[in-house]
Amino acid sequence: MAKKSSKAKSTKKSSVKKIAAKKTSFPKIKSEGDFKKFVESVQSAQGYRKPIGFGICHVTSGAKDPQKILTCQFPVVNWNENFGSAAIFLAASGVTPQGAEMVLPIDKSFIEKAYALFAPYHKAAIGDQHRNVQAIQTLRSICGKNPKLCQDYRLVFLFEDTEPQSVPAIYLKLLAMSHGKAKPRTLNLTGIFGKLENLAWIGEQPVELSELRDMEIELKLLGQFPAIDYVDKFPRYLMHVVPSDNTRILDCTRVRLGAHLAGGTTIMPGASYINFNAGTLGPSMVEGRISSSATIGAGTDVGGGASIMGVLSGGNSTPIAIGEKCLLGANSVTGVPLGDGCIIDAGIAILAGTKIAIASAEMQKLSDVNPSKNLKALAESYDAQSGFYILKAGTLAGCNGLHFRQDSQNGRMIAQRSKKEIELNKDLHGKPAAA
Amino acid sequence: MAKKSSKAKSTKKSSVKKIAAKKTSFPKIKSEGDFKKFVESVQSAQGYRKPIGFGICHVTSGAKDPQKILTCQFPVVNWNENFGSAAIFLAASGVTPQGAEMVLPIDKSFIEKAYALFAPYHKAAIGDQHRNVQAIQTLRSICGKNPKLCQDYRLVFLFEDTEPQSVPAIYLKLLAMSHGKAKPRTLNLTGIFGKLENLAWIGEQPVELSELRDMEIELKLLGQFPAIDYVDKFPRYLMHVVPSDNTRILDCTRVRLGAHLAGGTTIMPGASYINFNAGTLGPSMVEGRISSSATIGAGTDVGGGASIMGVLSGGNSTPIAIGEKCLLGANSVTGVPLGDGCIIDAGIAILAGTKIAIASAEMQKLSDVNPSKNLKALAESYDAQSGFYILKAGTLAGCNGLHFRQDSQNGRMIAQRSKKEIELNKDLHGKPAAA
Amino acid sequence: MAKKSSKAKSTKKSSVKKIAAKKTSFPKIKSEGDFKKFVESVQSAQGYRKPIGFGICHVTSGAKDPQKILTCQFPVVNWNENFGSAAIFLAASGVTPQGAEMVLPIDKSFIEKAYALFAPYHKAAIGDQHRNVQAIQTLRSICGKNPKLCQDYRLVFLFEDTEPQSVPAIYLKLLAMSHGKAKPRTLNLTGIFGKLENLAWIGEQPVELSELRDMEIELKLLGQFPAIDYVDKFPRYLMHVVPSDNTRILDCTRVRLGAHLAGGTTIMPGASYINFNAGTLGPSMVEGRISSSATIGAGTDVGGGASIMGVLSGGNSTPIAIGEKCLLGANSVTGVPLGDGCIIDAGIAILAGTKIAIASAEMQKLSDVNPSKNLKALAESYDAQSGFYILKAGTLAGCNGLHFRQDSQNGRMIAQRSKKEIELNKDLHGKPAAA
Repeated sequence: MAKKSSKAKSTKKSSVKKIAAKKTSFPKIKSEGDFKKFVESVQSAQGYRKPIGFGICHVTSGAKDPQKILTCQFPVVNWNENFGSAAIFLAASGVTPQGAEMVLPIDKSFIEKAYALFAPYHKAAIGDQHRNVQAIQTLRSICGKNPKLCQDYRLVFLFEDTEPQSVPAIYLKLLAMSHGKAKPRTLNLTGIFGKLENLAWIGEQPVELSELRDMEIELKLLGQFPAIDYVDKFPRYLMHVVPSDNTRILDCTRVRLGAHLAGGTTIMPGASYINFNAGTLGPSMVEGRISSSATIGAGTDVGGGASIMGVLSGGNSTPIAIGEKCLLGANSVTGVPLGDGCIIDAGIAILAGTKIAIASAEMQKLSDVNPSKNLKALAESYDAQSGFYILKAGTLAGCNGLHFRQDSQNGRMIAQRSKKEIELNKDLHGKPAAA
Repeated sequence: MAKKSSKAKSTKKSSVKKIAAKKTSFPKIKSEGDFKKFVESVQSAQGYRKPIGFGICHVTSGAKDPQKILTCQFPVVNWNENFGSAAIFLAASGVTPQGAEMVLPIDKSFIEKAYALFAPYHKAAIGDQHRNVQAIQTLRSICGKNPKLCQDYRLVFLFEDTEPQSVPAIYLKLLAMSHGKAKPRTLNLTGIFGKLENLAWIGEQPVELSELRDMEIELKLLGQFPAIDYVDKFPRYLMHVVPSDNTRILDCTRVRLGAHLAGGTTIMPGASYINFNAGTLGPSMVEGRISSSATIGAGTDVGGGASIMGVLSGGNSTPIAIGEKCLLGANSVTGVPLGDGCIIDAGIAILAGTKIAIASAEMQKLSDVNPSKNLKALAESYDAQSGFYILKAGTLAGCNGLHFRQDSQNGRMIAQRSKKEIELNKDLHGKPAAA
Repeated sequence: MAKKSSKAKSTKKSSVKKIAAKKTSFPKIKSEGDFKKFVESVQSAQGYRKPIGFGICHVTSGAKDPQKILTCQFPVVNWNENFGSAAIFLAASGVTPQGAEMVLPIDKSFIEKAYALFAPYHKAAIGDQHRNVQAIQTLRSICGKNPKLCQDYRLVFLFEDTEPQSVPAIYLKLLAMSHGKAKPRTLNLTGIFGKLENLAWIGEQPVELSELRDMEIELKLLGQFPAIDYVDKFPRYLMHVVPSDNTRILDCTRVRLGAHLAGGTTIMPGASYINFNAGTLGPSMVEGRISSSATIGAGTDVGGGASIMGVLSGGNSTPIAIGEKCLLGANSVTGVPLGDGCIIDAGIAILAGTKIAIASAEMQKLSDVNPSKNLKALAESYDAQSGFYILKAGTLAGCNGLHFRQDSQNGRMIAQRSKKEIELNKDLHGKPAAA
């Protein structure tokens, strides 16, 4: 597909309409002091707004319609941070903030202006330092040789967390989560399925399905029809994110862009999957499925084939958060949010409507680690003869220290106090639990 | 492996024996009228037979044995259609139909003759129109520059649906299913495992295992031993098919060539797989396994890790068709065919021998949506005290509106009327069910 | 990433320190007799030790630190075999065995000496014959043109099975298992996680995460950020092993290097995974998970999504060996070692603590196929009324002919004699079981 891809590039024409920009002449920035003063002047100008997210991105456009953005790459994702760089970019673009999001073209003038304004940081911009400055330096180097390449870039600002309207805005939100800068379920992602095109992904490049159909006869007769990696509206996490040193993802197909992986997460192959707007909040082991909107806490182990249901599956509407140090056994199914230190035995399904039996003594132990809840009051019934309280699993949502089992002698679903230690949240409870 | 692949090409020699062809001179075809008249003359000639499938394919041959076809690509798959093109191809080949399948060499003369006979359609052959004509045009362009390349192509006809004997015939049948032109379980695929070689697939190219072994020492010492994608007799669906715009396949490893995916199918990663001769008959969500010979209907959701058993697994011999609007819960197992609107709860297994309890009232509701069956008569027993009928799940095969659950208080497997609406098939039942 | 990779190569500098080698002059080897005499002289020299494993490997070094070995490729893996070649390699290296493992640099002199000593086998060294000789011939051809390339190779010896200290030693052990030369759980692999670096794998090349971070801004602005295949400390099985002709691995992501696959193994996609130090001991079907330390015997079928627990999951400490001709049903979970001819029904979990009921008559049949065990004595209790013995599943470890089921009418976990034939091991039992 190398040929196709270069062809796609050659047919791309810059037809992004320029937003009328006011002409400005900038002061010469020689020192960090100058820089800060300039940034303050921009930020105090009329109409200025702090962006919640911004960045420069490379875009890949449609083969026939260069206006259509198929995918984009943000070298630096800024999310509620680096407001100095945001001010520089805004000033260099000459545009005044408007609306909830802005996707602006980039030209040589923008690059040169931003480069000059970043002068005090030119030398220090290496490695982890001043990555927006590095992006401008690299962009200057790329477009300096060939200004036509400017057409492949956009400057993107999000000012409000509303429904994203453009592909770059959607990517910026997904990236904010995948770079660990925004937690799952905190951003407005309404309507993104409708705005992302279904694409064939081949290597690191997306190709439009219609384009593939146009080339199908020739490619097949040449014996060069590509092995398509996947067909989806979303790219994969590992096409955009370099994970932290202690994170392992044994198969790129298992994590969609928009998933949130805390450092120390291990994703095994087998039956695992982490969807967008879902993920891990601490070091954890994932051998099962974390559906869209679901999260797990630090120290939690999602066993092989275990399934945490999402808001879209099985008619569930409550997003499922699993706490810390939980163990979801192999091939178990979890349809209820859990607190810390919970266990679901291998092979069983705990859904909101599953009736759970809890023996009196266990009920007491569970009450001890869930001081803010009156568990007994949640019970549907109490059978004095067997000594079991009966509750719907859904009423136990968020409880700590639950161990769900199926009695292998009579098939009864039971819960008891797990053997795991629970650290109660000091903010939630008056005093910390005894060790 | 690029090097290897070109090497493989250079060692390929055309040793396909030509079938003795009678010399023919054709009339000049100037108009669609001429074309139709010519086609009729071919079709009415002695020995002519309508093919059930035909097409031209590019073949990739073995590194040492150019006679051995490893894989093939059909730019256009014709299946019970385009009989005019079939007649043209037959006439241009100069061969009379014989046997159940024919795999013929292609030469410059064939291409020129077919090209001339297609004259009235040369201009209109673009996009979706006249794709066989496009194939000849492209072939003429490729081989015109280098007639030796003709050795890489075959003309394939299937006249009868018998056991396929050649790799191109097998591919044509698998492709007919994967292009949605033949339904799963309708074609004779007997013996195909024995006729397809087990190959290492690297990128879009197959390599013989023996060839890899011959090159192993050199490739490893050069640090160029390839990352083999997979080793199998079959290629993958996404190496041959451009899916429809509303179909998503999030991981190419999940669908084998020969799978049938209706438009609107979504295949998630995680634990999904669709084998050949199996698939979806309408828009559907697949997060589980559809084994060989199994099918699901429109609107059906195969939950994460759910398993629909095939005829080869678990001693099952009945192909399992799942109807429309069914929900197979996460990690459930289905060993029984189901009608429309059925639900199997997450985590449970319903096999043919599983004993199912149905309460009297539910039995009545189920009878209402299964008017052609006498469900009560299928029961093994009725326990008047508990009010439950007991049936083997296998006897419920094909029933509508079943909801299978395990009672979480006593482990009993039960079925009740699902909450899903059922549209009864008007052809099967005297009158449509009330809404 | 082609560019990166070549860049990585150009920055590699040979800084491997040479171990002081004594100068030796060798006799001229003209015949196989000369060769054998020379090998004997080496083997009888003072300080000589037979290696348990040895080989020459190509190494890929870190982009910044050429001392750091990221991965290596052994064209020939020698494991308790080919001691003649070992003696030649040792003699040509001029080094005396020391310690448990040795990783030596390679230079032109080594190659020429080894080549000369292998003289009687130069001609016969093709295909399966004399692969160590072939390796030297190929190495001579590669480095003859460019002696600097010698820096990319190491000569590796393992003299004792202790904790491996170097990346090449770890790879040699993993390869010994994956080439079927050492069984799972027979080698000391302690500490390997700490010695292997977490890497991004792209195509067949590993890239350091820090290197990717350094290049991230440029690669993303160029639209060339690579689609990373996976991030892990281990490579994949199919990056190193050409499987036997009757082995099929439908997705390379499913098998880690260090897995042991007997010829005739089929690994389906879906929910399968075979970890390192685990695998199949005979022809078998794998559609589920074989965790680290677990093995299955010939003729065994691990159903779709079935999970065999490893020593690391679920607090299990007994490695789980499954015998021959067993069937682990779809989505079942196995936490107990099993003998031959066992069945676990689809969807159920048998853990060490699961209480199992066995009816008297079945207990007798099971005792017949497990003559070395007193099954009744293992029972926790016997209920005369129901006629069931109750045992913890863990006490049945290694038993033959078990069929585990869940009674669908009352949820009771039961075991009975499976319908599968058992061939008792004649060495273990006084007399073979009656047919």
